[in-house]
Amino acid sequence: MSQMDYWLKDQQARGVDIDAAKAKLKKLDIHVPLWLYRDTGTRFGRVHQEDSATADNIFEVAAALHKITGCLSSIVAGGAVAPEDVARTKARAEANGLKVSTVHGSYTTSEGLYYGSLTNATSAIRKEFTEYMLKQIEAMRVYGAKYLSIWLPDGTNFPGQGNFIDRKKWLIECLQEAYDHLDPDMIMLLEYKFFEPAFYHTDISDWGTACALCRRLGPQAKVIMDFGHHAQGTNVEHILANLIDENMLGALHVNASKYGDDDLIAGAHQPYRLFLIFLELVLAERYSGFDMADIALTVDQCLTMEKKMPGTIMTVENVQIAYAKALLVNLDKLKELQMKNDVVGAAMTLKDAFECDVRPLLRMVRAESGLPVDPFAAVAGL
Amino acid sequence: MSQMDYWLKDQQARGVDIDAAKAKLKKLDIHVPLWLYRDTGTRFGRVHQEDSATADNIFEVAAALHKITGCLSSIVAGGAVAPEDVARTKARAEANGLKVSTVHGSYTTSEGLYYGSLTNATSAIRKEFTEYMLKQIEAMRVYGAKYLSIWLPDGTNFPGQGNFIDRKKWLIECLQEAYDHLDPDMIMLLEYKFFEPAFYHTDISDWGTACALCRRLGPQAKVIMDFGHHAQGTNVEHILANLIDENMLGALHVNASKYGDDDLIAGAHQPYRLFLIFLELVLAERYSGFDMADIALTVDQCLTMEKKMPGTIMTVENVQIAYAKALLVNLDKLKELQMKNDVVGAAMTLKDAFECDVRPLLRMVRAESGLPVDPFAAVAGL
Amino acid sequence: MSQMDYWLKDQQARGVDIDAAKAKLKKLDIHVPLWLYRDTGTRFGRVHQEDSATADNIFEVAAALHKITGCLSSIVAGGAVAPEDVARTKARAEANGLKVSTVHGSYTTSEGLYYGSLTNATSAIRKEFTEYMLKQIEAMRVYGAKYLSIWLPDGTNFPGQGNFIDRKKWLIECLQEAYDHLDPDMIMLLEYKFFEPAFYHTDISDWGTACALCRRLGPQAKVIMDFGHHAQGTNVEHILANLIDENMLGALHVNASKYGDDDLIAGAHQPYRLFLIFLELVLAERYSGFDMADIALTVDQCLTMEKKMPGTIMTVENVQIAYAKALLVNLDKLKELQMKNDVVGAAMTLKDAFECDVRPLLRMVRAESGLPVDPFAAVAGL
Amino acid sequence: MSQMDYWLKDQQARGVDIDAAKAKLKKLDIHVPLWLYRDTGTRFGRVHQEDSATADNIFEVAAALHKITGCLSSIVAGGAVAPEDVARTKARAEANGLKVSTVHGSYTTSEGLYYGSLTNATSAIRKEFTEYMLKQIEAMRVYGAKYLSIWLPDGTNFPGQGNFIDRKKWLIECLQEAYDHLDPDMIMLLEYKFFEPAFYHTDISDWGTACALCRRLGPQAKVIMDFGHHAQGTNVEHILANLIDENMLGALHVNASKYGDDDLIAGAHQPYRLFLIFLELVLAERYSGFDMADIALTVDQCLTMEKKMPGTIMTVENVQIAYAKALLVNLDKLKELQMKNDVVGAAMTLKDAFECDVRPLLRMVRAESGLPVDPFAAVAGL
Repeated sequence: MSQMDYWLKDQQARGVDIDAAKAKLKKLDIHVPLWLYRDTGTRFGRVHQEDSATADNIFEVAAALHKITGCLSSIVAGGAVAPEDVARTKARAEANGLKVSTVHGSYTTSEGLYYGSLTNATSAIRKEFTEYMLKQIEAMRVYGAKYLSIWLPDGTNFPGQGNFIDRKKWLIECLQEAYDHLDPDMIMLLEYKFFEPAFYHTDISDWGTACALCRRLGPQAKVIMDFGHHAQGTNVEHILANLIDENMLGALHVNASKYGDDDLIAGAHQPYRLFLIFLELVLAERYSGFDMADIALTVDQCLTMEKKMPGTIMTVENVQIAYAKALLVNLDKLKELQMKNDVVGAAMTLKDAFECDVRPLLRMVRAESGLPVDPFAAVAGL
Repeated sequence: MSQMDYWLKDQQARGVDIDAAKAKLKKLDIHVPLWLYRDTGTRFGRVHQEDSATADNIFEVAAALHKITGCLSSIVAGGAVAPEDVARTKARAEANGLKVSTVHGSYTTSEGLYYGSLTNATSAIRKEFTEYMLKQIEAMRVYGAKYLSIWLPDGTNFPGQGNFIDRKKWLIECLQEAYDHLDPDMIMLLEYKFFEPAFYHTDISDWGTACALCRRLGPQAKVIMDFGHHAQGTNVEHILANLIDENMLGALHVNASKYGDDDLIAGAHQPYRLFLIFLELVLAERYSGFDMADIALTVDQCLTMEKKMPGTIMTVENVQIAYAKALLVNLDKLKELQMKNDVVGAAMTLKDAFECDVRPLLRMVRAESGLPVDPFAAVAGL
Repeated sequence: MSQMDYWLKDQQARGVDIDAAKAKLKKLDIHVPLWLYRDTGTRFGRVHQEDSATADNIFEVAAALHKITGCLSSIVAGGAVAPEDVARTKARAEANGLKVSTVHGSYTTSEGLYYGSLTNATSAIRKEFTEYMLKQIEAMRVYGAKYLSIWLPDGTNFPGQGNFIDRKKWLIECLQEAYDHLDPDMIMLLEYKFFEPAFYHTDISDWGTACALCRRLGPQAKVIMDFGHHAQGTNVEHILANLIDENMLGALHVNASKYGDDDLIAGAHQPYRLFLIFLELVLAERYSGFDMADIALTVDQCLTMEKKMPGTIMTVENVQIAYAKALLVNLDKLKELQMKNDVVGAAMTLKDAFECDVRPLLRMVRAESGLPVDPFAAVAGL
Repeated sequence: MSQMDYWLKDQQARGVDIDAAKAKLKKLDIHVPLWLYRDTGTRFGRVHQEDSATADNIFEVAAALHKITGCLSSIVAGGAVAPEDVARTKARAEANGLKVSTVHGSYTTSEGLYYGSLTNATSAIRKEFTEYMLKQIEAMRVYGAKYLSIWLPDGTNFPGQGNFIDRKKWLIECLQEAYDHLDPDMIMLLEYKFFEPAFYHTDISDWGTACALCRRLGPQAKVIMDFGHHAQGTNVEHILANLIDENMLGALHVNASKYGDDDLIAGAHQPYRLFLIFLELVLAERYSGFDMADIALTVDQCLTMEKKMPGTIMTVENVQIAYAKALLVNLDKLKELQMKNDVVGAAMTLKDAFECDVRPLLRMVRAESGLPVDPFAAVAGL
């Protein structure tokens, strides 16, 4: 009996449908912003990595990583809105087998960063950024992109600096104007963030605020949950469940954090949390009519100390491991123990899946999908 | 020229309407749970204070403190629902010039604490607690109380222990049944809490969750914001502004905290934060049609190391100082500087009020209201 | 080829010495306070579990759990100091094959809890608690116990309540008197804690304070690190490494926490962190002359929602899994990659061990030690 | 009777020696890094303020602000070590009536930022930064500067990336070499920081680590406490008291923070905390033989949204207010109430000073020192 046969027999004994799990894993689609592959930095300065992409080769780099992983073809484009830039981006993406799924603009021009973009007390600046959103929507039409992804650096540093409610009204006015220009199949994504770059308050500080805004805008407005945009100690998977239950989840920004919006490699510090997040998605597909294809699972990391290419592979590996383990949870048994208030039993049901080594399963999935079985080796060989 | 004349002249120069401020201060009504005056403790044991009230004299103690402060006549009663208990409580309150404004039950019977009350997987327990709510509503009718105040200790300690969404559905079902029994002038108050006594998740963990529940229930459901029920670093005054703007604020639970739900004396650690909280209320009255009389400003403290009587006076003193300073902010000047993005100017406009010594104003208000000018001395003389 | 053979071959390929790992796992000795098996609670009330031990059967329960796990024979006794109590505890422990390794007294008599024990401004109270420590040392002589374990609930709730430095001086005086009574083979353990039950300051708030105290006392004073006694976001394994490097580590209090001193089951929420903690111990044994037998690895949990017996098994299971995985890290490869600043490579070297399923190894170790291979089944059968 | 007479009479009644307080306030010396006056930013980009200093006029700007405030003549110079740069800086400082008290180098060259400076696994890089320290010490000799101020961006982003103890050893080696080159009247200052720019661990993460390093180096090594370099919820004033008691305090980095190292204007968010910090300094001067002149009280802020000139005035104003209020605390009364465990009384003794309006006192001090009574007006008129 081969080692793989043993593995499959074990899983059968655990009551898991491995074929269903494999099918799910094969459909995994991770959206990725192009800037993931480029140099980035901290407030103390820019950091260069020798394997960073350049403006010239970035689509080729993205394509190479998609070819190895099989799940990185959906691209998040920056907010360049000049028609020639949009056309060129589209052409380069297509030439490399990629597709722009999302437009994610920058609201941090120097003036906007000072005192806000869509919440700036100066109406001319609000107008400028509103028009910028409209142009992004035009770009989306060119790309055939579904998501207008919005994160604002807006907030204040001092008590008294701004009036929370004035700013909220301005924000709604601006967003509403953009919302009204969306095509019916477009989704406006609003991202909340606990702090940074503003430190006293951020205008969209938590999921409650983001939901309140989406409710005012309409059903095409949804929330982005970035794993690192919460206070210390926040139960992120609970918020995720709530967002799905409120029909408000539009996207997940995948990364890891220890303190704030650290934008580190997903699963590198708390793999169990990443597993619990995926478990909520698996539970929602089972019980809540949720479909993972309806949200944009997006990498939002800022690799500084890590080389870009193996760092990206590590991201995918960790996500796949977390997802695979979540798919190995025996949901029927879990529910049964929950209904009996068997606390240790229910907790151990999760651990029983988490402790499995799922790397044999990932290798099988990769082989069946015609992908390199060892993506680290593949990327090292580029 | 007397010292008070100088003080008033200074305020006039600052552009503040002192008569309006005095009128507001005189109307301040702080709801107070009777158990504030009784012994309490920590998980390590009960703590006795020599000036704690007993079951026998608690209404007399409450009345004495109201007589000194002039703002403590609205009483929060526990959830005793036996008709004879309710009748006796009502009679004793009235005999002492007090009024039950709020019923706040306990959902922590031993069985409920284990695995939840309204979110317990066992339907019989959920039913038991639902019926308890209905009886509390009956008690409210006897008292003429406006508020049904609900804080649940419900939550889980371990990943997997419960299904977030199942629990949310059960919770809504139970609350809806109680909600449907409310009289038209009653308000159901839902309190959220970040953690404790459950540590992995609490079912109503944040204001976003509380608002979502209230929206499903109906317009008589409102949110309680306890200052200490948030993650570290949370901007509480921003949430307060949001709750008012969403028409969701029902009550404030006043206290201080450094780490969690420490339930310390309000304003003792971060008086500037208490000032900022009152400033949001003052701003909402000025700009948002809000009326402070529409919410229950309630003390929710757990005095362990502090003597009860002076501790209560310290609470009132700190609240009055914070409110008085908020009333001294020149709102017109603040708005003007905000609209010009004058960050330092706007921030200093708040500080300019906060740095005033408002104790002369409080003494004036007390004297005009026929109250002891020095409440600490008055309580020491009891 | 059997499944186990495959497993062993894989580990051989990873460059791991499985025999050495098994030897380490067999020596694991987890000290356990007797109260782990008894009812406990939160500040909202006591919680009863049907399988809790009683005063009558507690030694039998402890013995039964040791018989199943093979690593729970070292007992932490409470601070009862009456000679007859000490004699009885000793006799009952020995009759059940257990050994008192540690005396851990309570400094929370009501008076002490109010305003401190060894830091109380009233010298008579400090004297009382100092004498209590001396009596505990006498009890240690009877038991043949090595550790005097000290956690103080001392601290203040309000700025101004106490003078930090006065209290520190009093604390050192009291501890020094006890320290001077220690036998040469005894260790005084000082536990630090970030907050609770005091909320403004705790007198021994962090490892820096604990080390400063130990340095003044002498080489027989060491620090207890409880995993849950830190601020949110603290890198606990880094502190652990520092304590070992400063020759200050005396004991670890093993548990899990999400917010504060939650005292949940170790490894239930962040198994990767538990792995990283054990990795520091493994690294210290390899590189720093550290010996795990020189510290007291002690469970410090407070089971409320969990049944005591399976909860204890889950604790042991999680600890063994974490330790086993740490023993599977290829330390040579790790060092080599660290020296090359290969960030992803080094990070993946840890993950490469963590992702292994070590339960086959644990079953092998148990079988070889004559213990039940499935301890959950064994405890269910009691 | 004038308003000031009333004020003085009140303070006399409070038992405060106003002449002593005035003398202390007049001696206040706030060290200031030149870059405070220049443009700065966040990780999202640089922010320009219209009143920022340029390379050309920075000494003139610093001199102008010192002329208005009377307390900003001690300058922190960056780490430029070329002899011609050092000479020019010295000449420009002296020509403007300023004095370089401190040299604060940058350890964030791109290579250093990647993987550490003094903790880098590559010995050549450690050597390079060590030599840089030696050159800074030479520059200190030219300047007649007392302080070598060291903050390292060193740390790791991932578990496994580095070995904590290897890095600590390298760090000590490098620091020791620099320490051994210090002149007898020089102080080496080590700054700790909880996180950022590294997110998994920082090599000098807390005051315990910093003290441990200083102890190994020798008595001329002291600790810098930056108010914003701690975990959420940390009692900063307690650490300050401990550092003084351990004779380890070398400098304070003054600023405000709400989440992390926000570097906001001191006292703008939690003025009571700033007051409590100054109270510890006042207590230490009274009871512990501490002298405020022995430490470097240094502004460490990063003004982005605020204009530089009024922002600096606001900093000084807030510091002076906090210090003045701390000087108004009746320390004898405080001690007496602490010794009686009168919690509310002791807490209110602090509040009794904090609630005083000390701006009349500051105006008196400024007038007597020949400084503009209203520094905001003075700076606006520049």
